[in-house]
Order: sequence, then C-alpha cells, then structure tokens
Amino acid sequence: MNKKEVIFILLNGFADWEGAYLSTYLNWGVKPGGPVKYTVKTLSISKDPVTSIGGFKVLPDYGINDMPEDYAGLVLIGGMSLRSPEALQIVPLVENAIRDKKLVAGICDASYFLGVHGFLNHVKHTSNGLDYIKQAGDKYTGEANYVNEQAVRDGNIVTANGTAPLEFCREVLYALNADTPEVIEKSYQHWTNRLTPK
Amino acid sequence: MNKKEVIFILLNGFADWEGAYLSTYLNWGVKPGGPVKYTVKTLSISKDPVTSIGGFKVLPDYGINDMPEDYAGLVLIGGMSLRSPEALQIVPLVENAIRDKKLVAGICDASYFLGVHGFLNHVKHTSNGLDYIKQAGDKYTGEANYVNEQAVRDGNIVTANGTAPLEFCREVLYALNADTPEVIEKSYQHWTNRLTPK
Repeated sequence: MNKKEVIFILLNGFADWEGAYLSTYLNWGVKPGGPVKYTVKTLSISKDPVTSIGGFKVLPDYGINDMPEDYAGLVLIGGMSLRSPEALQIVPLVENAIRDKKLVAGICDASYFLGVHGFLNHVKHTSNGLDYIKQAGDKYTGEANYVNEQAVRDGNIVTANGTAPLEFCREVLYALNADTPEVIEKSYQHWTNRLTPK
Repeated sequence: MNKKEVIFILLNGFADWEGAYLSTYLNWGVKPGGPVKYTVKTLSISKDPVTSIGGFKVLPDYGINDMPEDYAGLVLIGGMSLRSPEALQIVPLVENAIRDKKLVAGICDASYFLGVHGFLNHVKHTSNGLDYIKQAGDKYTGEANYVNEQAVRDGNIVTANGTAPLEFCREVLYALNADTPEVIEKSYQHWTNRLTPK
C-alpha cells in the first residue's frame, strides 16, 4: 500500500505526551496486523533538533522549506513555542492544508494557535477551556462553535485539550479513516478502561 | 539547585508513550513552580538517531561509551529492540546502577529485559503479565516476586506493564523523591480522573 505522510509539527518545548499515542497508531497501524495506511514525519522551522518538554531531542524530517506537496494532514503538537514569532511561519502551511481539505489537528496550545489565526471560527472545536481560547484575540470569533469536550472533530479539523492525548488520537484516527470504527474504539479502550482508578 | 541526570535508555523502535509523562515531570518538575531536581538525558548504543515506534527520530545525548559517572538513575523504555544483540551492551550499565543503589526502572519489554538478565529475581516486580516474563528463560527465577499490578516499586527498582505509563511515572517519581507524595498523587490523578470513561 502506498502510505500517505502525516506530518507532525514540532517546535521547541513540544509536549511529549500529546502525540505519543497518535504517532504510534498512525505509523504502526491501529491494530497489530491491521492496515498501515500512514507514515509519520516530523517538521519544524528548520531541520535542527527540537527539544521536548521532557528533554528528548527530536531531529525533524523536514524544515519549513521542505514541506512535501503530497501528504494526508498536519498534526500540530502543543508546547511552549506556539506563541513565538517563529511559529507564525507555520500559518501558511495550515492555510494550504485547509484549502486542500486535508486533516488539520491541534492539541493544547496548538488549538489556541489555530484559534488565534482564525482557523476555528466556522467549525466545532475545543481547547484547554473557553476562557483559554478566548484570549486568542480579535481573529478568534468562534465562541459559538466552542464545545466543552476533551476532543472535537468537525470534518477535517480536530482539536483537543492538552489533557486528552487519547481522545485526540481517536478523533484523528477517525478523521483519517485509519481503521474501522470498531478497531479505533478498541484502541482507545485499551488505555481508558485500564486507567479507571481502582 | 544542582540537578541530577536521569538517563533514559532508548533503542530503535522505542515506545513513544512509555516515557512521555515521566520525562516531562522529571525535566520540568512535577508541579508548575515546584522543585526541579532532575534533568532528563537520553542514551543509546551510539549517538546516531534512534527512531520511535511512532516515527520520531531522537538524537541521544549519550552513546554507550559516554555514560556519565554522576547520575541519579536509569529509565529503560520498552520497544522493539530490547531482545537484539546490541541491547546486551546495556547490561553492564544496569549492573553498575544496581551496585551503586541508583534507580533502575523498566517498562514493558524493558521489564522483560531486566528479568532475562537476572535483575528481578530478588525484588518485587511486574511486567506485561507473568507468562510474558516467564519466557525470559533460565536467569529469571523471580516468579515468587512477581506482582500482578500495573507498576511495582521495590527500593530502587521500578517495573511496569506497557499499558501503564502513568503508574510507571508515579512510582519512579516516588523512587526519586521528585516531590511530595501529595504532589505526586495529584500529578497522577490529573490524568486518571479525567480519563475515566463517561
């Protein structure tokens, strides 16, 4: 099968946990032995290593100028640098992805980033709380579309709270049709059922 | 404060989710504004990038020959390469750490690795199930010390099931006295309470 690339955008201080489940299920398949439709690539502003909150140094596959034309979607991981001037260089990539009806997914401060640049005004979305995303300023006029859930999918746009790496994962897997609904739900329950406090 | 290094051992095909919470809480502190006693470093066989299951390429801080003398402990992350011949080069590092009474923590196939090399025989421990670790062969004689829990801490040795990144994190934070018990428990509940299925 010709695998499509899903591009994870990582800036310095990215949150280790936010893409960990999703990258695994995309790159390895949702179920052992099942289809593997996607391959995970990472992109940052340059190809220099970016350091996670947890101190892992990740070597991006792409810098901003190497962005491939053929890809399935963008996954924006939250963290400490999405409000930095250099993060503005990501905006045209998101514009292009939305124009081309590709997946755009943002978790935690990446949902804020999508809000501040006006990408969430006309789609159902969530973030780290309504008050959190309302700080996003004038370009954010999407309050009526804010949904108080851990993760929200509206067409090709997925947003999530930073506490919701598993719900974010599930909704992106649905958006990308990564496997059957039954397999996607099981992949989610694999973690959530056992995490129920005793 | 003079921060001590906690060294995460990563081989090719390491599991993205297994160290994600722990690296964050160690490297940033368990609670925002609280003490940061540790700094996270990564080590692999060489300093060449290692690729996670999810496709992230991590550039190790250390190769096996750069292992520092002064450090607080080793965290072995599970994955696809712990049964490879090259993984044998990790064994002396674990021997030294145990001799020097430093933390040794292993999750998922890293707990199997600790079992197969005889490090779990005299401590309470867990893994991905008793049958799983019993495959470890002659050097594993620790069945009587196997505990059917998501994560187990016995002195400086912490082991966990691969489905238990949060419990693994909590027990390592306790073993390293990373913050007060109250703060450590809250850091765990931050994730587990909200993950309870609705």
